[in-house]
Amino acid sequence: MAALIHDGQSLRVEGERERPALPPGEARIRLRLGGICATDQEITQGYLAFKGVLGHEFVGDVIECTTPSLLGARVVGEINCACQACAHCNRGLPAHCSARTVLGIQGRDGAFQDSFLLPERNLHRVPAEIPDEQAVFTEPLAAACRILEQVDLEPWQRVAVLGDGKLGSLCALVLAQRSHSVTLFGRHPGRVPFPISVEEQPPPEQPLPVDRRFELVVEATGSPAGLEQALGLVAPLGTLVLKTTTFRAHELSLFTQVINEVSVVGSRCGPFHTALELIKNGSIPLGSLVTDRFPLEEGVAAMARSKEPGVLKVLLEGPKRQ
Amino acid sequence: MAALIHDGQSLRVEGERERPALPPGEARIRLRLGGICATDQEITQGYLAFKGVLGHEFVGDVIECTTPSLLGARVVGEINCACQACAHCNRGLPAHCSARTVLGIQGRDGAFQDSFLLPERNLHRVPAEIPDEQAVFTEPLAAACRILEQVDLEPWQRVAVLGDGKLGSLCALVLAQRSHSVTLFGRHPGRVPFPISVEEQPPPEQPLPVDRRFELVVEATGSPAGLEQALGLVAPLGTLVLKTTTFRAHELSLFTQVINEVSVVGSRCGPFHTALELIKNGSIPLGSLVTDRFPLEEGVAAMARSKEPGVLKVLLEGPKRQ
Repeated sequence: MAALIHDGQSLRVEGERERPALPPGEARIRLRLGGICATDQEITQGYLAFKGVLGHEFVGDVIECTTPSLLGARVVGEINCACQACAHCNRGLPAHCSARTVLGIQGRDGAFQDSFLLPERNLHRVPAEIPDEQAVFTEPLAAACRILEQVDLEPWQRVAVLGDGKLGSLCALVLAQRSHSVTLFGRHPGRVPFPISVEEQPPPEQPLPVDRRFELVVEATGSPAGLEQALGLVAPLGTLVLKTTTFRAHELSLFTQVINEVSVVGSRCGPFHTALELIKNGSIPLGSLVTDRFPLEEGVAAMARSKEPGVLKVLLEGPKRQ
Repeated sequence: MAALIHDGQSLRVEGERERPALPPGEARIRLRLGGICATDQEITQGYLAFKGVLGHEFVGDVIECTTPSLLGARVVGEINCACQACAHCNRGLPAHCSARTVLGIQGRDGAFQDSFLLPERNLHRVPAEIPDEQAVFTEPLAAACRILEQVDLEPWQRVAVLGDGKLGSLCALVLAQRSHSVTLFGRHPGRVPFPISVEEQPPPEQPLPVDRRFELVVEATGSPAGLEQALGLVAPLGTLVLKTTTFRAHELSLFTQVINEVSVVGSRCGPFHTALELIKNGSIPLGSLVTDRFPLEEGVAAMARSKEPGVLKVLLEGPKRQ
């Protein structure tokens, strides 16, 4: 079976790879479609020192499992695999399990292979009316929905999203469901016919003009310099949600955050049921976010394509079904 | 009249200084005692580019005012002087007024002079049972109390305060009123007989051992490196309150904040009535926080003393009353 592997040094597709045995409570899933995320690119730069099969955005079919009724189901899956025993698990916070593995990110091979493993309790059936090309967005869309679990957003509050890449665009589209005023700042105004305005974002070395008029700002630039630009947009007592995960450091002074009593909130994984509901309702124009698709065997080329300027989501196709 | 002045270059006591006229709605206050704060030291390093008379912690007597009943009152005062017309003032947030002046910090001469001005609405009468030596702590104690307005702290939640200086110590003492478990990390364990434990804090270049066991962490080191140490103490989904205001930048990577969904909350001025109540109840051992006192004329020496390692609060005495 084929797999897209980062071995710590380089990226390659391995043609022959042995299938691991199925642990109790887990399911084996055959990949239908995978989505390449900025975190996959960060991993190839050394983020979290992960080595193994990449990929955590997917839709696939259950081909082997413990619970008979699950066999054959088309599923998406939550990426944090919890121990169900630690203090965080006991408090109902499996995403913060202190002994967790994370699909394609930490201690567990990912979804960019013919088939892969996830605990059954992580899986969500995909409603029949959602095509694969939309279902594959469930994970990043859930991450965007996480913001509304963390922040009380009133319709009158002004929202800015910094970064018009894959995740930034999803965040802006989700927040536009709640706020009447969402501005997306990015490098590619006009690239996608979004129902929200996109304003030109200057390069990181040239800060945005300080304009503290947004009650909620989402930082999704993928760049360590984005935080400073974003802080210049937040109104006093406002909230800045951090979505960028990069291990690269940045020189920063936070006294304006203290003076303006701004809250900076880290934000990661979110509710799959909310994301699936949004997709089913057709609320989010996901089609316009796909730039390209490649067969799994061309995973290295797909990763390169995904890094090109202006490219949004690149999809990977799983093995042909017999 | 004498005044402790920072002219942008250096610090001096000016012996003869003209009294400004009293604007409508304001009061003239004769200094009884002033307290030197880390922000005063930061200003002498260029923070906020303030030039003028220093000082924002004080207790004094009203010697001239608009409202007759206020004359002669012993008062403390809130430091943010609001325009009462901007969007923030209209939302009841005068501390964030976009046109504000701030006593001894921004656009308004401070309290380290024989007499100074503040709007009458900023003043709070000091109950007779509170001596000057405790009343002078109202402003920084209110800043410590601000944390409990911003964060829902449950008694079972574990609190760490980083920095056992003036403000850090006050924060720890206030939070110990609510949480059963407060640990103060600092350079001077055993200096003050606090009713809370003080653990040795390593120097900034040597990070604290990462130990994410505190639901609430307060960063009050006064050093730009403190934030990184503090982030290593916060439990997943926990809160880090930033009290340090320094214009000095620090190299920082925030991906663990994102992964652990930590909230970093800037925190500034707080409720005077709560602080006065705490002082009146004798809940906070303020006496042990005073290291030294100087007459106003020796303000330069007092500022130097306040900077010495291990020194806590240094007080400035106003003019002798006739």
